[in-house]
Amino acid sequence: MRECLRLADVAGANGDVPVGALIVVDGVIVGVGRNRREADADPTGHAEILALKEACGRAGRWRVDGATMYVTLEPCPMCAGAIVNARVARLVFGTREPKAGAVRSLYELCDDRRLNHRVEITEGVLGDACAQRLTQFFREARARKRTLAVGGEAK
Amino acid sequence: MRECLRLADVAGANGDVPVGALIVVDGVIVGVGRNRREADADPTGHAEILALKEACGRAGRWRVDGATMYVTLEPCPMCAGAIVNARVARLVFGTREPKAGAVRSLYELCDDRRLNHRVEITEGVLGDACAQRLTQFFREARARKRTLAVGGEAK
Repeated sequence: MRECLRLADVAGANGDVPVGALIVVDGVIVGVGRNRREADADPTGHAEILALKEACGRAGRWRVDGATMYVTLEPCPMCAGAIVNARVARLVFGTREPKAGAVRSLYELCDDRRLNHRVEITEGVLGDACAQRLTQFFREARARKRTLAVGGEAK
Repeated sequence: MRECLRLADVAGANGDVPVGALIVVDGVIVGVGRNRREADADPTGHAEILALKEACGRAGRWRVDGATMYVTLEPCPMCAGAIVNARVARLVFGTREPKAGAVRSLYELCDDRRLNHRVEITEGVLGDACAQRLTQFFREARARKRTLAVGGEAK
């Protein structure tokens, strides 16, 4: 999860909401991702999707059986759905996302017995550090907005 | 939707579950996609995701405000989440997917008032033709499996 936090920091430094993810199979990192939605102008450019695409690209198949995904923030519906689609075995996330989280907050997509795959879930790993990154990012973004607004009024 | 059916047929002919999607803005097709999960060994390679990526790539932004997505099959959780994330205005789909559909069947992800965007939904457009493609694909896939099994026994 520390490596995910590092990836999140890189995302934040590039103007994207700081989220980082990685995928481990048999103790080896097979996919990494950081949020690149703004950087790539891509609505699917979330950390989890990019980590999955890398892992599957390496393996040459659309399943990552036995894989564990680590991610700093509770996945949104798109990413939770992708995690199920790719048959990720275990998901470890840092902090909940009350507005759009689809693993525990709004939905429980990753262990819904009606779907054809269930994921084992662990939450709260380095949760405070993961949450703090996000709080700080949005605080700074609001401050920048205020500064711009004041600058605009002064003109 | 007829063009989506054509895209679905191409997917089916290439060994993927026959699903086709396209995105229209101001009467112009700005993104097309056909299911390429097997072809690309990519769990995110659904028709809707590929259509969205094309539309956003062209526009140079992660939002497709005012866009209508047409797709032959009710989107799964991953695709429904991506449709919300990309701010698609309207979704038109052919037939329901009772096992994994996330727009009407198992979830109502695209017009959940708790999320920060709601999509207008129309279903059942060329529904019989869309459903028939899928039924036929799975019937043929089962028949191929049986033939292979019989072949295996004969050896």
